[in-house]
Amino acid sequence: MAGQDAPRKAAVRTPPGTLLDHHCHGVLRTDPDPAAFEAFLTEADGPAAPGTSFFDTQLGFAVRRWCPPLLGLEPHCTPERYLARRRELGAREATRLLLRGSGIGAYVMDTGLPGDITGPAELAELSGAPVHEIVRLERLAELAADTTGDADAFLAELAAGIRSAATTAVGFKSVAAYRYGLDLAPEPPALHEVREAAANWLKKRPKGDRPREQDDRLRDPVLLRHLLWSAVATRLPLQLHTGFGDPDLRLHRCDPLLLTDFIRATRRSGTPLILLHGYPYHRNAAYLAHVYPHVYADMGLTLSHTGARAGAVLAEMLELTPFGKLLFSTDAYGLPELYVVGSRLFREGLDELLGTWTGSGAWSRTDAERVTELLASKNAERVYSAL
Amino acid sequence: MAGQDAPRKAAVRTPPGTLLDHHCHGVLRTDPDPAAFEAFLTEADGPAAPGTSFFDTQLGFAVRRWCPPLLGLEPHCTPERYLARRRELGAREATRLLLRGSGIGAYVMDTGLPGDITGPAELAELSGAPVHEIVRLERLAELAADTTGDADAFLAELAAGIRSAATTAVGFKSVAAYRYGLDLAPEPPALHEVREAAANWLKKRPKGDRPREQDDRLRDPVLLRHLLWSAVATRLPLQLHTGFGDPDLRLHRCDPLLLTDFIRATRRSGTPLILLHGYPYHRNAAYLAHVYPHVYADMGLTLSHTGARAGAVLAEMLELTPFGKLLFSTDAYGLPELYVVGSRLFREGLDELLGTWTGSGAWSRTDAERVTELLASKNAERVYSAL
Amino acid sequence: MAGQDAPRKAAVRTPPGTLLDHHCHGVLRTDPDPAAFEAFLTEADGPAAPGTSFFDTQLGFAVRRWCPPLLGLEPHCTPERYLARRRELGAREATRLLLRGSGIGAYVMDTGLPGDITGPAELAELSGAPVHEIVRLERLAELAADTTGDADAFLAELAAGIRSAATTAVGFKSVAAYRYGLDLAPEPPALHEVREAAANWLKKRPKGDRPREQDDRLRDPVLLRHLLWSAVATRLPLQLHTGFGDPDLRLHRCDPLLLTDFIRATRRSGTPLILLHGYPYHRNAAYLAHVYPHVYADMGLTLSHTGARAGAVLAEMLELTPFGKLLFSTDAYGLPELYVVGSRLFREGLDELLGTWTGSGAWSRTDAERVTELLASKNAERVYSAL
Repeated sequence: MAGQDAPRKAAVRTPPGTLLDHHCHGVLRTDPDPAAFEAFLTEADGPAAPGTSFFDTQLGFAVRRWCPPLLGLEPHCTPERYLARRRELGAREATRLLLRGSGIGAYVMDTGLPGDITGPAELAELSGAPVHEIVRLERLAELAADTTGDADAFLAELAAGIRSAATTAVGFKSVAAYRYGLDLAPEPPALHEVREAAANWLKKRPKGDRPREQDDRLRDPVLLRHLLWSAVATRLPLQLHTGFGDPDLRLHRCDPLLLTDFIRATRRSGTPLILLHGYPYHRNAAYLAHVYPHVYADMGLTLSHTGARAGAVLAEMLELTPFGKLLFSTDAYGLPELYVVGSRLFREGLDELLGTWTGSGAWSRTDAERVTELLASKNAERVYSAL
Repeated sequence: MAGQDAPRKAAVRTPPGTLLDHHCHGVLRTDPDPAAFEAFLTEADGPAAPGTSFFDTQLGFAVRRWCPPLLGLEPHCTPERYLARRRELGAREATRLLLRGSGIGAYVMDTGLPGDITGPAELAELSGAPVHEIVRLERLAELAADTTGDADAFLAELAAGIRSAATTAVGFKSVAAYRYGLDLAPEPPALHEVREAAANWLKKRPKGDRPREQDDRLRDPVLLRHLLWSAVATRLPLQLHTGFGDPDLRLHRCDPLLLTDFIRATRRSGTPLILLHGYPYHRNAAYLAHVYPHVYADMGLTLSHTGARAGAVLAEMLELTPFGKLLFSTDAYGLPELYVVGSRLFREGLDELLGTWTGSGAWSRTDAERVTELLASKNAERVYSAL
Repeated sequence: MAGQDAPRKAAVRTPPGTLLDHHCHGVLRTDPDPAAFEAFLTEADGPAAPGTSFFDTQLGFAVRRWCPPLLGLEPHCTPERYLARRRELGAREATRLLLRGSGIGAYVMDTGLPGDITGPAELAELSGAPVHEIVRLERLAELAADTTGDADAFLAELAAGIRSAATTAVGFKSVAAYRYGLDLAPEPPALHEVREAAANWLKKRPKGDRPREQDDRLRDPVLLRHLLWSAVATRLPLQLHTGFGDPDLRLHRCDPLLLTDFIRATRRSGTPLILLHGYPYHRNAAYLAHVYPHVYADMGLTLSHTGARAGAVLAEMLELTPFGKLLFSTDAYGLPELYVVGSRLFREGLDELLGTWTGSGAWSRTDAERVTELLASKNAERVYSAL
């Protein structure tokens, strides 16, 4: 129970009026070329279909709406003009301007993604805001596998890694949805099963610093369950990817309802589970947050990718999710533009929605202001600091 | 075929301008304390997460919008103030004021829920409106099991109970979705299977007036199917829980589409099937009501729990559901506030929607008025009285 | 690889300002009686429930809104008045007036539906617009089965039919969703499996010109897969029915996500896959179009049947679907009214949506105009002409 012994970390807090982005990634250290920039605007993993562009998406349009003004251009200028201005400023200055214009007052960053992207300290320096860390479980396991030879050593190293992470990170994250699907057996695997699965995986896995390939990655369902239950034992908040993402996942196996029995099994654990993204199953995630006390919901990727529709999708989340259970995040990765877009779409969508509801008398203005604060930062502060 | 011999019951009718609530439960006889009151605002089965309140939900906000004025307070007053006023009036008077302010002109009540709640006669007296009865199949079976010793006696008692209920009730209801899921085999079980399942269940079930526990409840899929087919044979309308509810159910096993083969199998029976609630699978329920002549849809729980979003969800129901196939209900239980909220959200949501559609020219005003009457009461009157 | 050798067909193009309907059927040659007319307003396969009418649906209301003015009547006149006027004009003149008032500039027609309906040449003459052809795979197989005696002859005849169709049609269509479901094994079946499945099907199938019954139709999953892969090999666009339709299908087996592994398997084929209709799984179809370069989405049936809600559903499609990936169609069949309604609802819904988005500054007007052209015709022109 590492969480119980862990030194208390600095509380996750934001300045008034700013957002707490409880789930994001690093930004690129260098200027992307146009094709690389465009690739960050989609969950697709290859080039756009002939005759089409990833700029012609809700996210592409949202970037062209919100970001040019932060770099001194008019909204909706052409991609070419925008990218030219960005190059002119240089990656570092563009990133600084965008992050500081995003309205985000604190970050919780998943450090488990590859690429030439910033770590927490660099993001803090560029953004001028504190950055906390979330540790990706599958990455911990892969690191442990890189440095150990047999199942017992691997499991010991992994346990030490989780213990250690629990002393510095504010939570864990699992991408089991990508690696296998959420249709995992709900109960903790038996030790002998874990040992056997570890031995099999290590045997098949290339060693050393040979270039990592997809097959190196942890996809074994027994080990994925072992990771989840190891994280649950720390009692730190556990983020779970659910819903859409890149084509490495099969969407119908990422319905958060597939976690129902796991959620039941962890109900008495004291560990908050945070269902990320959810879309297009976000109403299902909302239901789970409604009926299970330790389940929270997030919108993450969803708002950025739905752009002009972000407010409409947020409205669907606000049907069943108790207002003390919904957290804001951007899931931004690579482009600082994605922080801007994620936060603007959230702010604008929520303001418009609550404006309508207070206007019709459905909600009181006082309640609307209180709920805005809950979603913007206070829910996340409560979940990540109540340890 | 008890339904064919049954004496004709009083037709289910409502005074003009009022709603026919075709699916509700009793109200509490006594004043709930604040925690008990709050517990009725959620489908969760335990306390709210630390730092959160069930008042901070769409349903909580809707109660605070619509109910205080009926008790002489301003809308959106604090929960504390509202509960104090309620105590001051006393449970009976508060209940009377709320029910009589709900705009509901007739009730169809499921009497199968436990607790110190009113029966039909008391509800009629408090509300000043006629109350008809729906009999919950699983409760009938549990009552039969309480008083019989072996499978044959149990089945005979159950058959008599269904026959008798068909002479007084206007329909049946099944909560198979909670007890097992809707992924039941579609065909009627063979008699020998039913007998064997009954014997097994009776053997495991505690007897007499020992306090009822969850395990006493009927969960056997063969017996649940036997109940469904026994009800179908009466030709009385059969209500089926579908979609969300408390965490006793697994939501993905409550998708009404799982009933597709049962619906096909009962198509020639002459028995109307009414799919309750549906959310978040309400568009699936709408589809079934669209293509199968004996299938009807309802919104029940959905409108109350989605509050300021009730009109938006109702709009989704009105995509595929033929306008002669959608029924109004509150699914209210325990708190008289839930009748008020259910009916106001329905009225307001529908008025706003049809106002928009007539305003744009999409619908004519005459059609809008006619559809309002269908949904408010005439569809239910037709379904429950055409026997 | 018939597609590679095929003579280049006339490009699919539309006059400026008109729509390209990339998926429709023929219209009735004769005047339907009232019951027959009403039957075309629903996906149900029998009469409406007692006391209800298929005119009381979103589609019924949309027909009464948009069509009477094209025949010289006021919008929302009664069905009786409308049908009387239609009879007065005669089927041919009413059809001509409706089709020429639909705003559709070119058609791509699936010729595989039965009934006394027009073929492509007649539709072209009535509408004054070019009509291209889509060939329904299952129909090709059934035609081949009608004229051959054993599995090898059948497979040879089928292969010849597909080769020949690829020289004249602009694409293929599969209704495997109806015949089996989309939960087909994703890989191409082995030749020996196909031969065995063909032999079994031919053996059970009645021969000659005996009246066709449901059981004659191709439902074997191995043969359905063989058809899909045969079409993929031509590299012509392949339309796949997904989502709702008449009760011959089981809706939960028509979720386009069930095609995920087939989509992965065909990713390098160069064959565009077009997911038709999608509803209520249209957000899932949008996701697939988002992440896989060769996948496109369509709304088809959905807009007509959701009527006043068409714009709202279109908005959901425009969350994840890249704007270069969404195609317009009516899926009109039998009634010329369905062309009118499909095109008007699309135009009106899109205009209103983009008006809102440009009004709020979310989109630029230039982008909105460009996206309107993409959806109206340019996406389809690109997909069907890039051969």
